[in-house]
Amino acid sequence: MPNARPELRVALLGQGLMGKAHSNAWCQVEHFFDVPYRIRRALIVGRDEERLEKMAQRWGWESVSTDWHSAVDRSDIDAVDIGLPNHLHAPVSLAAAAAGKIILCEKPMATSLADAEAMTAAAAKVPTAVWYNYRRVPAVGFARQLIAEGRLGTTIYHYRAAYLNQSGADPSRAGAWRMDPALAGTGATGDLLSHLIDTAQWLNGEIGEVCATDRTFFPGRQVDDAVLTLAAFRNGSAGTFEATRFAIGCRNRSRFELHGSGGMLQFDMDNMNYLGFLDAADAASVQAVRNVMVTGPGHPWVDHFWRPGHAIGYEHTFIAALSDFLSALARGERFHPDFADALQTERVLEAVGRSAAERQWVRVPAG
Amino acid sequence: MPNARPELRVALLGQGLMGKAHSNAWCQVEHFFDVPYRIRRALIVGRDEERLEKMAQRWGWESVSTDWHSAVDRSDIDAVDIGLPNHLHAPVSLAAAAAGKIILCEKPMATSLADAEAMTAAAAKVPTAVWYNYRRVPAVGFARQLIAEGRLGTTIYHYRAAYLNQSGADPSRAGAWRMDPALAGTGATGDLLSHLIDTAQWLNGEIGEVCATDRTFFPGRQVDDAVLTLAAFRNGSAGTFEATRFAIGCRNRSRFELHGSGGMLQFDMDNMNYLGFLDAADAASVQAVRNVMVTGPGHPWVDHFWRPGHAIGYEHTFIAALSDFLSALARGERFHPDFADALQTERVLEAVGRSAAERQWVRVPAG
Amino acid sequence: MPNARPELRVALLGQGLMGKAHSNAWCQVEHFFDVPYRIRRALIVGRDEERLEKMAQRWGWESVSTDWHSAVDRSDIDAVDIGLPNHLHAPVSLAAAAAGKIILCEKPMATSLADAEAMTAAAAKVPTAVWYNYRRVPAVGFARQLIAEGRLGTTIYHYRAAYLNQSGADPSRAGAWRMDPALAGTGATGDLLSHLIDTAQWLNGEIGEVCATDRTFFPGRQVDDAVLTLAAFRNGSAGTFEATRFAIGCRNRSRFELHGSGGMLQFDMDNMNYLGFLDAADAASVQAVRNVMVTGPGHPWVDHFWRPGHAIGYEHTFIAALSDFLSALARGERFHPDFADALQTERVLEAVGRSAAERQWVRVPAG
Amino acid sequence: MPNARPELRVALLGQGLMGKAHSNAWCQVEHFFDVPYRIRRALIVGRDEERLEKMAQRWGWESVSTDWHSAVDRSDIDAVDIGLPNHLHAPVSLAAAAAGKIILCEKPMATSLADAEAMTAAAAKVPTAVWYNYRRVPAVGFARQLIAEGRLGTTIYHYRAAYLNQSGADPSRAGAWRMDPALAGTGATGDLLSHLIDTAQWLNGEIGEVCATDRTFFPGRQVDDAVLTLAAFRNGSAGTFEATRFAIGCRNRSRFELHGSGGMLQFDMDNMNYLGFLDAADAASVQAVRNVMVTGPGHPWVDHFWRPGHAIGYEHTFIAALSDFLSALARGERFHPDFADALQTERVLEAVGRSAAERQWVRVPAG
Repeated sequence: MPNARPELRVALLGQGLMGKAHSNAWCQVEHFFDVPYRIRRALIVGRDEERLEKMAQRWGWESVSTDWHSAVDRSDIDAVDIGLPNHLHAPVSLAAAAAGKIILCEKPMATSLADAEAMTAAAAKVPTAVWYNYRRVPAVGFARQLIAEGRLGTTIYHYRAAYLNQSGADPSRAGAWRMDPALAGTGATGDLLSHLIDTAQWLNGEIGEVCATDRTFFPGRQVDDAVLTLAAFRNGSAGTFEATRFAIGCRNRSRFELHGSGGMLQFDMDNMNYLGFLDAADAASVQAVRNVMVTGPGHPWVDHFWRPGHAIGYEHTFIAALSDFLSALARGERFHPDFADALQTERVLEAVGRSAAERQWVRVPAG
Repeated sequence: MPNARPELRVALLGQGLMGKAHSNAWCQVEHFFDVPYRIRRALIVGRDEERLEKMAQRWGWESVSTDWHSAVDRSDIDAVDIGLPNHLHAPVSLAAAAAGKIILCEKPMATSLADAEAMTAAAAKVPTAVWYNYRRVPAVGFARQLIAEGRLGTTIYHYRAAYLNQSGADPSRAGAWRMDPALAGTGATGDLLSHLIDTAQWLNGEIGEVCATDRTFFPGRQVDDAVLTLAAFRNGSAGTFEATRFAIGCRNRSRFELHGSGGMLQFDMDNMNYLGFLDAADAASVQAVRNVMVTGPGHPWVDHFWRPGHAIGYEHTFIAALSDFLSALARGERFHPDFADALQTERVLEAVGRSAAERQWVRVPAG
Repeated sequence: MPNARPELRVALLGQGLMGKAHSNAWCQVEHFFDVPYRIRRALIVGRDEERLEKMAQRWGWESVSTDWHSAVDRSDIDAVDIGLPNHLHAPVSLAAAAAGKIILCEKPMATSLADAEAMTAAAAKVPTAVWYNYRRVPAVGFARQLIAEGRLGTTIYHYRAAYLNQSGADPSRAGAWRMDPALAGTGATGDLLSHLIDTAQWLNGEIGEVCATDRTFFPGRQVDDAVLTLAAFRNGSAGTFEATRFAIGCRNRSRFELHGSGGMLQFDMDNMNYLGFLDAADAASVQAVRNVMVTGPGHPWVDHFWRPGHAIGYEHTFIAALSDFLSALARGERFHPDFADALQTERVLEAVGRSAAERQWVRVPAG
Repeated sequence: MPNARPELRVALLGQGLMGKAHSNAWCQVEHFFDVPYRIRRALIVGRDEERLEKMAQRWGWESVSTDWHSAVDRSDIDAVDIGLPNHLHAPVSLAAAAAGKIILCEKPMATSLADAEAMTAAAAKVPTAVWYNYRRVPAVGFARQLIAEGRLGTTIYHYRAAYLNQSGADPSRAGAWRMDPALAGTGATGDLLSHLIDTAQWLNGEIGEVCATDRTFFPGRQVDDAVLTLAAFRNGSAGTFEATRFAIGCRNRSRFELHGSGGMLQFDMDNMNYLGFLDAADAASVQAVRNVMVTGPGHPWVDHFWRPGHAIGYEHTFIAALSDFLSALARGERFHPDFADALQTERVLEAVGRSAAERQWVRVPAG
């Protein structure tokens, strides 16, 4: 009796890349997963009305609006999914929380730590999610599983990550909102480093202290094009992070490596269906990185998609995240990452920014 | 005025992996492409009624049937999409053609060349498609484009391809219809080699002659577990093809390499977002295979999906194929591969089978 | 008391690439291995006297000659190392055998099977070696070790190999002796395929039957530029082999893959320090090709060279082969591959050539 | 008239891995290069007399001594090659300089910056070399050439490097001199980071400022197991460096990547025959990293070794360095890196150590 499933009426705010990725997730989640709700794509909000109409028709959004308040004000909306530029995450979230809506918000959470704190406080009583979708790359989920099972040993010595693209050097993107501090808050920090930090803390626990430097290569730009940081995890691991929009030659290369007493992991978003795993317990003569194709069996989410050996793509990270969110929602449990989790990432990002400005190590408050 | 688009009422036959992949394609094609039809997922046909009901609900098929004749008999069906076991491709196609339906059929086309010929003849006046979806891997499409542009030179010397999986050694699949000659026709030949041949002839023109050998490793099995063939293309290229279900260690590795007077191409379905391209015109000191991520810009289909650098998965090959088919249909043009194209692949497969049986070179009739 | 080691007085015939590679091996073998002889580089033979003098001085050859007979005639020569064009392998070997010399001969053994048979018969009572140096790539030696230990399972289903270079398309090499049937015998067959067959039979036992085709792409050339063959091993494995000098984009890519009931191996000479190994006994979720760097520990020869993780190069295959030969010689044991082993490779090559000419399967006599 | 070449009488100090690598270089340099000297391997010095005798015999050293002073005191020695533990580099160099000897010294230069400065001052009038052999990896030399030719553009934005091994976690090496601060000075800093800094400054100019952190994971150890640093190059590039002996899973992985306005370079010592090069001037649709096998043509040194496509190994970096040194010596020119060059690396290492201790950014004095 699937019709016994309660309805979940969703408003999506955003009509850019994230508007498309989220629309797809809301459509596809019911195709690949047993979803405990009947999803209604009730409203889509954006500023370009003409494109918005087409988008609504294409993806099955029942109504459109050019004013985000309508998503919050309408009583027939249960969940607000925020895919707007960063500076709007806080006001929309605060309003949505006040209206008792379920909130899903794109990353980074906010343009300032103060906003992120206010959002978290305001939303304390509503279910929340932040779209750090890379947690739901099956290979990344499998990495977490291997770590949890102790396959990397009892101590993680090193964690290094880099998010490399070349968007900063592209003159055609120079005027984009992502390059405007008023709209984006920061540059590479919020856009790219945030992903690395979310994944790192999910896999290896909290970062306790950072020392960073940043660069703005593009003439006249007001946000950071690149940010590099040393990091001390609370568990003793030594970390390095680099996020840059001036990695000429890289389109969307996001990678991490970690070394523990029991082995090594390697991941690169450019080969998102693979996880490199070296098991230090293997005999020395056959000890090497295994380039595991993480499309099942025994891998998270992917038995819902296609068969072992059949690649999935970028969009499936959103679908899997949404499925997890809806399951948690139905069970009355917290989804991770929610606002509280993402706040801890914001604390790291704020410390990184302060460290770069002050040229010294900065401690990160515990979560 | 999108509502001015004519309606296309589709019946899908099949509820297995292909049922799912085709369902997804029929859903997603309108999300990613401007489709000249309003698609109605009118009917889904399968034998397991309980699972079929769930599948219909999940993917939005309006009605269900356990008898494939209903798809052909119903006058409110425009197109029949056949994702059934191979032995049903011919009877369903013949009936659908007689009823004037548009036909889309899974590969391989048939369980015998005679059937494929009959199907092609019967369907001469209806639009047809065969789901050789690997043509619509963007990297494969880009390979064709590079060849067409002369980037591989005027002469292609070598073409080698292998389709490697380990399904034949898996006892749990021993009873599957794919292992039964009555239902599947052949084993690795129809299942795997057919893909290689379709791609090869698309990229490099017709194969004129083959010399093959096959193996059945699994005790008591009646179909070929592996087939290996030498091939002479009509353009003079020397080819080797290997298709096997006993490539222990490989889940779904389908690859090809070609060398022309102007360079080299490499593709492996295990890394489907990449195409290796070596340009022999490059200076020797920097001449090497470029591992091109084929997700745009300048690459076929992918600007409809996500951004450059964002991977797509297996399912997008079906979506792109369907978009191309619907565009051709609306323009009144042939889609490729249609039945006539696939018939030429069947001629090669038949020659391969005969060559393996007779232990000699066998000529392939021209298409 | 190393001076108690007997002296071994060597004559090297050849002053090209092989002259250099063998000179280096004769110099270096004592540096890396405990050699049971005091090697004297007594004589080097070549036709270009000026270059020969320089070469002798550079590599420490005590005397020079432009006539190969001097190597055979001189009573103070113990071993004759033949690095001359193929057509001279037989006459020199016959003369050297008659003179009771130890014989080391470059591959391929001869320009005809009859010559190879005569050489083997004539040299029945002298120690012999054929320089199929790829057996002494540590990764290849380790492959053999893994197979011998049963790590690939009890049955090998598939063996595929390719030797790809582009020398045939290079006009500057068109006049080289390797392109002249009188001097080389065959083209890609003797030059490249011979290596593949030697390795294959060493790893997987004898080939029993072949079906081949060849191509000459270069206008007016009298030897094969490419040869492709299907092969049935006596143990039931199905094999494919491709050797070509028209693999545009490849400089010296020699690779093989095999699939057994217990796993998979992959090797590519372009990455000669690595062997890919998949162990089918691994848990499915972490089962993948391990890209093992075969530089120790537990790997053949390499503890004599540098440390684990430090790459060795092409020349070390000759050094290791020579060390093995000298050890066998001192122990009075056969070295492999000797003339008898190489003869079996010649039988396969002859069958390949006949098969290509006759367009049919050809049996290979047992060794 | 090669005998007209002057004699160069060499004393080698050291009988470990470097003793072997240098011995090999002194033997092989004359085989692969036209050396302007007649090399005499006059003396080898080490403390284990028995092993030393064997080593002398094996590599052709004419005499042995267990006292390094003999190398300096003997008037029939022209050049002193120091392959001893780090703490001896200074005293031996000072004595050798005082004696007017040519000096070649292993890296790192010294155990303190003060020592390195004293060595440089003392040796101002004698030819010197420091064995930063990785500069002579052909791929690294080719990287420098591409940068010099402007192929990476006018601005280098990013330089990142890591030297990863697992030697620190190996209990069997815990007592090695490399783990003793009195003998080694530092741990990963001098052993591994020094290589990265030498290469980085060679490719991208001086580093002006660093901010570092280090770790000692092994209980009771007195030297750093790992050191991580942010770096500002004087040309504006942002750098990250990581050197660690606790990179479980890595044997000797030393790599760097750089991004300039004109493209990208990637190098990994684990695949030392390759250099990844992306040319941002390529058309977007075929723009990708080219995995160039740097074995000629057009590549530094390798035409002296084997043929294009034939891999060279670790030892060839020493041979090429020695050839360059001897050529410079004969021409009366400075070799790079000499003591003055290596001193600048020491300045960076000292700044790194101080930064890690003081937890702040530290400026590096200009060279």
